[in-house]
Amino acid sequence: MSTSATNFGPVKITETVLRDAHQSLLATRMRTEQMLPMLSALDKIGYNALEAWGGATYDSCLRFLNEDPWERLDTLKANLNTPIQMLLRGQNLLGYNHYSDDVVRAFVRKASEHGVGVFRIFDALNDVTNLKTAISAALEAKEKPHVQGCLVYTISPFHTNQTFVDLAIKLKEMGVHSICIKDMSGLLKPYVAEDLVKKLKEQVGLPIELHTHYTSGFGSMTYLKAIEAGVDIIDCALSPLANDTSQPCTETIVATLEGMPRDTGLDRQAMDPIAKHFLKVKKEIMKEFNLPGYFDVNPKVLDFQIPGGMLSNMVNQLKEMGAADKYQELLDEMPRVREDLGFPPLVTPSSQIVGTMATMNVIMQANGQPRYSMVPNEVRDLARGKFGKTPKPVKPEVLAAMKIKPEEMITDCAIADAKEPKMADFRKELAAKKVDKKLAPIKANLASVDAGIYEQVRDTQIAKMIDEIPEEDVLSYALFPQVALDFFEKNGRL
Amino acid sequence: MSTSATNFGPVKITETVLRDAHQSLLATRMRTEQMLPMLSALDKIGYNALEAWGGATYDSCLRFLNEDPWERLDTLKANLNTPIQMLLRGQNLLGYNHYSDDVVRAFVRKASEHGVGVFRIFDALNDVTNLKTAISAALEAKEKPHVQGCLVYTISPFHTNQTFVDLAIKLKEMGVHSICIKDMSGLLKPYVAEDLVKKLKEQVGLPIELHTHYTSGFGSMTYLKAIEAGVDIIDCALSPLANDTSQPCTETIVATLEGMPRDTGLDRQAMDPIAKHFLKVKKEIMKEFNLPGYFDVNPKVLDFQIPGGMLSNMVNQLKEMGAADKYQELLDEMPRVREDLGFPPLVTPSSQIVGTMATMNVIMQANGQPRYSMVPNEVRDLARGKFGKTPKPVKPEVLAAMKIKPEEMITDCAIADAKEPKMADFRKELAAKKVDKKLAPIKANLASVDAGIYEQVRDTQIAKMIDEIPEEDVLSYALFPQVALDFFEKNGRL
Repeated sequence: MSTSATNFGPVKITETVLRDAHQSLLATRMRTEQMLPMLSALDKIGYNALEAWGGATYDSCLRFLNEDPWERLDTLKANLNTPIQMLLRGQNLLGYNHYSDDVVRAFVRKASEHGVGVFRIFDALNDVTNLKTAISAALEAKEKPHVQGCLVYTISPFHTNQTFVDLAIKLKEMGVHSICIKDMSGLLKPYVAEDLVKKLKEQVGLPIELHTHYTSGFGSMTYLKAIEAGVDIIDCALSPLANDTSQPCTETIVATLEGMPRDTGLDRQAMDPIAKHFLKVKKEIMKEFNLPGYFDVNPKVLDFQIPGGMLSNMVNQLKEMGAADKYQELLDEMPRVREDLGFPPLVTPSSQIVGTMATMNVIMQANGQPRYSMVPNEVRDLARGKFGKTPKPVKPEVLAAMKIKPEEMITDCAIADAKEPKMADFRKELAAKKVDKKLAPIKANLASVDAGIYEQVRDTQIAKMIDEIPEEDVLSYALFPQVALDFFEKNGRL
Repeated sequence: MSTSATNFGPVKITETVLRDAHQSLLATRMRTEQMLPMLSALDKIGYNALEAWGGATYDSCLRFLNEDPWERLDTLKANLNTPIQMLLRGQNLLGYNHYSDDVVRAFVRKASEHGVGVFRIFDALNDVTNLKTAISAALEAKEKPHVQGCLVYTISPFHTNQTFVDLAIKLKEMGVHSICIKDMSGLLKPYVAEDLVKKLKEQVGLPIELHTHYTSGFGSMTYLKAIEAGVDIIDCALSPLANDTSQPCTETIVATLEGMPRDTGLDRQAMDPIAKHFLKVKKEIMKEFNLPGYFDVNPKVLDFQIPGGMLSNMVNQLKEMGAADKYQELLDEMPRVREDLGFPPLVTPSSQIVGTMATMNVIMQANGQPRYSMVPNEVRDLARGKFGKTPKPVKPEVLAAMKIKPEEMITDCAIADAKEPKMADFRKELAAKKVDKKLAPIKANLASVDAGIYEQVRDTQIAKMIDEIPEEDVLSYALFPQVALDFFEKNGRL
């Protein structure tokens, strides 16, 4: 290690075993009760933070685990002094749409009240407009949480390390306390990471955290070079849920730095019982949900920037359309479409969008039709700017081929969608659902008395109930309407 | 990368997919026919060598795959120009005993004739006496193979990097062409590797190759620091058979170095179809032999230096003896026993020996008996010096506790066992087996003619047959007597 490394101090670790690790390896299926026995032990390790909420956990709690995500957060908070970190998709929160500013503000406020201590906030397109509301809401929360802005890492002829430094400077101007390099596809190569971290440390002047996935095998090497370049915090997962498509292994990194200038100072032996517990949990979850739990290292991700699972889906699409022999054409078409659409980072949902468009282009060309002669709606929306600004503008000739008119273009997506308050509407909708459910058994009786009386009773009931609904339930309903209703019904709360 | 790295030239890669990778992940069950379709593609990559023979493959061919290992070697040689590397356990060859010098010489000569281009030779105790015959036989082979001597890497209060440098100097004096750091348990930490490689490069003046396993998660980081320190060659495995308990991933390392001063120059795209093929093969083998194929990263290896599988065996031993609660005592006893026995590296067979002794000590003490009050034979043999010289002498008080008398000590194990020629005996034994088998149907008839005639016919037949037996068969019989006889019988060669 270069002698300059002595100036950087101990490396801090954010542990992901409670969130990203099981999201990456076990389809986000870990239950609160499986975490509970180890919270006290995890709390004593001295982690920078425990990533334990947000990402896909909210949806998974409601949809698959019959848990209220807010109750999980309360349980975590009651058992932890270490800051609880959540991953938040900016204006998309934890759902798949753009939400109104008041919904974003309410969500962030509630999350802070319930115990989120670190808000990690990102936008798939790195469009800071999509980050503004979430970041300012988190900065204003009275519990004073740590607010972290993300650089969603990608590679393209247009992206250089300086592109990300410039983005980091914008995030700093928005007031974030630290910067996270979010390398969700494992594309960040070790020596590139070294250079990027150096530049960020020199030009940004905020703590830098690095988050990667082991998907293409760079993980630990990338951390090592980032550590030598002065990265402040890295995201790791305890051994049973480490590597493969998850984060590099906590114990391995701790052991690597032992006795070196940037020694983490964390007690590796104290991690052993925790690792044992989560190995057991991993096996339980693999069995219960019939999950593989292991993935081969996949260096091809580097070339196509799409996860292996996604690639197999596209191959299946080709097969279904009788074009299985067009695989190589598809691989060649992917980067072309990505370039046409302004080099979006390939993460959900842009990876699916680019993949589908590439598949369509290959099929159409095989049938003698030009590229972009058939365009799915989501591709049109991405091209129109509905998801935010793409890193580069979409090519004019591509917009023309898609027959998108200038007046259809959206230049301030987040703002346009977000200005109108929506919390009250969601609250009223949910109240109405509850009242309808409550009145269903007597609806016929009421109607037999008088045609108008049902509506009258219903309105009175809604007005009576509307303020009793916890804001947390309104948020669940706002993000995942049908899933939330099913959850409430299953638990006698509808 | 430090600028000095520019002086070292491209990193060379030895590919292990045909030997150590499937030995580590798939119980050595890959068949020649599963290798064959990719030999031409592998040959074109430009690897330093293809490790494809030796280790456990010889035993596995005969025992599980019904293949003649010499025929596999012929097939490989017929399809490859890239040097074929084998792993050889010095005086133990590929078996579990010390063999006579003439057996060792015959084996090495035959292996060279059949196409081994790189002999990688090691001794579990790093006792160079056990390496002498194999190294000199390889150096004398008329095909002029490359001869590599190994440092079996281990950690102990007694071992420093200088210990290994001194060993490397001894190997150089024995005439080897290059030095391999053989880190079979994945204990070599990244910054320790950097220092060790630097020292070896400075003090030994031979090409240095690094071989590790990903077991505790250091693999790729260790390679990266070794590369920066000037290591010449590293051992990698293609992605489907990489990482976990196998070698770091070839494609990942190649990608990491692309465009850097030590760029391998290898074509990553050309590896893709090969990787695809071996992914299919991996799945076939996992299914046919009901193997898991995946292993969790296991950082505890660092503390106990024994593979995870071995540790679970020891826990089972404890359970069977009704002492499951003595797990922690066992973990504490392991390093104590290792120290008592002179810090042997913990690899087969020394890991089993130390583990069994530690288990016995824990059990005896639980029953109020002193340590070493019951000693298994193999432990006595190790203590007596039967397997070679331990790194430090066994403690006198431990020898006393084991009731080993001075006259029982063996100081020149390999030499003592190895002086007497044995090839002729093995050949005669095998010929006798063949003749007995041939005469079995008429044995009763012959005996009825005259009591002595059977012996007479038998001797004549043996004398007639003895020179017809291929030396390769004699060697298979010498190394794995019963397994070889079963194999010959199954294939109509007995």
